[in-house]
Amino acid sequence: MRMDGATDFREKYEEYANFINNALDSCLATDNKPGAEIYNAMKYSLAAGGKRLRPVLALAVCEMLGGSRSEILPFACAIELIHTYSLIHDDLPAMDNDDYRRGMPSSHRVFGEALAILAGDALLNKAYELMVSHMLKKEGDLRACARAMDVIASGSGADGMIRGQTLDVCYEGRELSGEILEYMHRCKTGALIKAAVLAGACIGGASVPEYEALTRYAENIGLAFQIKDDIMDVSGDPDLMGKRSGKDAAAGKNTYVSGYGLDKAVQMLDRSVSAAVESLGCFGAGAGFLRDLALFIKDRDN
Amino acid sequence: MRMDGATDFREKYEEYANFINNALDSCLATDNKPGAEIYNAMKYSLAAGGKRLRPVLALAVCEMLGGSRSEILPFACAIELIHTYSLIHDDLPAMDNDDYRRGMPSSHRVFGEALAILAGDALLNKAYELMVSHMLKKEGDLRACARAMDVIASGSGADGMIRGQTLDVCYEGRELSGEILEYMHRCKTGALIKAAVLAGACIGGASVPEYEALTRYAENIGLAFQIKDDIMDVSGDPDLMGKRSGKDAAAGKNTYVSGYGLDKAVQMLDRSVSAAVESLGCFGAGAGFLRDLALFIKDRDN
Repeated sequence: MRMDGATDFREKYEEYANFINNALDSCLATDNKPGAEIYNAMKYSLAAGGKRLRPVLALAVCEMLGGSRSEILPFACAIELIHTYSLIHDDLPAMDNDDYRRGMPSSHRVFGEALAILAGDALLNKAYELMVSHMLKKEGDLRACARAMDVIASGSGADGMIRGQTLDVCYEGRELSGEILEYMHRCKTGALIKAAVLAGACIGGASVPEYEALTRYAENIGLAFQIKDDIMDVSGDPDLMGKRSGKDAAAGKNTYVSGYGLDKAVQMLDRSVSAAVESLGCFGAGAGFLRDLALFIKDRDN
Repeated sequence: MRMDGATDFREKYEEYANFINNALDSCLATDNKPGAEIYNAMKYSLAAGGKRLRPVLALAVCEMLGGSRSEILPFACAIELIHTYSLIHDDLPAMDNDDYRRGMPSSHRVFGEALAILAGDALLNKAYELMVSHMLKKEGDLRACARAMDVIASGSGADGMIRGQTLDVCYEGRELSGEILEYMHRCKTGALIKAAVLAGACIGGASVPEYEALTRYAENIGLAFQIKDDIMDVSGDPDLMGKRSGKDAAAGKNTYVSGYGLDKAVQMLDRSVSAAVESLGCFGAGAGFLRDLALFIKDRDN
């Protein structure tokens, strides 16, 4: 099923993603001093692709509110650096022990575990280097930047994404209640998606009601994203299975499908996408891209 | 050998360290939600002690310049969180594979590798959460805070501390030139010590010449700290050997003693401490504590 204007949406998405990719390429500039190997490892994982969903969200929200691309860009890139570091550390033998990521050998397979750990650390740190060096170049009040950095830092830390990963580690192999499962995913996937939306809101100058509406939007697409992921993991479609590892399901990981069954999970997906779309009401026609993005999360096949 | 006023110095140092320890205790406040285990792992390593050299430096520099303790405190704590995360990740089996840290089982021995990796990540991230949430509470211009955060972020990242760790990993077992050895240590140990001094300088409102003098001071005590470490590792004094692992020397790690020989290393230590003390000339009597601190780095026995 395709919504109207799907081509427009895809073109706009591509354009945002290209804009991000160009910026990401240049934000890991290095020198020729010894030890520059660390940058190779950082760049390898950052260049390995992905949808750039989080930075696209940050850009789109900021633009919808009338903010400028150059002002949100360092924050959007920082979020992608953080997302990338989390994947490197997630793949480590002591964590998920994944040899492949997006069809390419994972960082520790290419660079060894020690350098993979350091590359993750360096990407996380670089995210903050990027944001703060942007602040120092800026004239005038730095409060909106500080607020954007704050939502990103909170979403990434021990009360956000890392909390979710902790739950994943601590509860593996144990059956979770629906409540804890939802909390785990809200932290693990949802927190950084929410941080991306709210960073866009901070830099775009959202009013309090706009900020609240965007919070609801972010929470619902975060939930939808994770449910869709879980559904794709158990999909009988061999095309889809080929694109995904299905490893989570095989390893007895806690997913929405394992917790609620496929039918209920599909219902929950529909509900969260509808709620996301509804929460954009106050933005009128300007929110077209974000509306389409919510539908795209439901309809995507990878 | 004891310098005059050694008791005063030690009392002042204790007082600074206690002030830091109290603040560190409260900066990892958690909730009762699932996954709060991550905070146990973070607190375990943070409470495991150490000299608190870096935050003490930040406080002392800031106070010498007339800055307030409460303004530098979040930055001082952030630096100690970063130092602590680096120790957790350094100890991992894929890195130095150390089972003990300061006489206690290392993080991965207590919590497992997965949680140790996450606790390190969370401490690094918390450092930035702490700094940015302080900024948001502050009234007025945030530029000094942004500058302090910038020196900390640069000192911790792929061009600072992590570069040094990368060299350590990439060059292990190979003999290094004096130049690369010095660069490695300047990054690995020196960069965060320098960041601590310069964060104090930013918040204390240092003038350009003061900032430059403190940069020289920081670089020299950073060097002295590392050389002294290397000397203690090969010291024949059984008391000292008992306190240290001697593991670096045994593992064929590149050290100042292995690279230059003990006599030359002792000379270099003396020279760097003298240079540190000289660089404080412009601060007059107010720099007494920092002067004593440089001498303490030379004379310390752990």
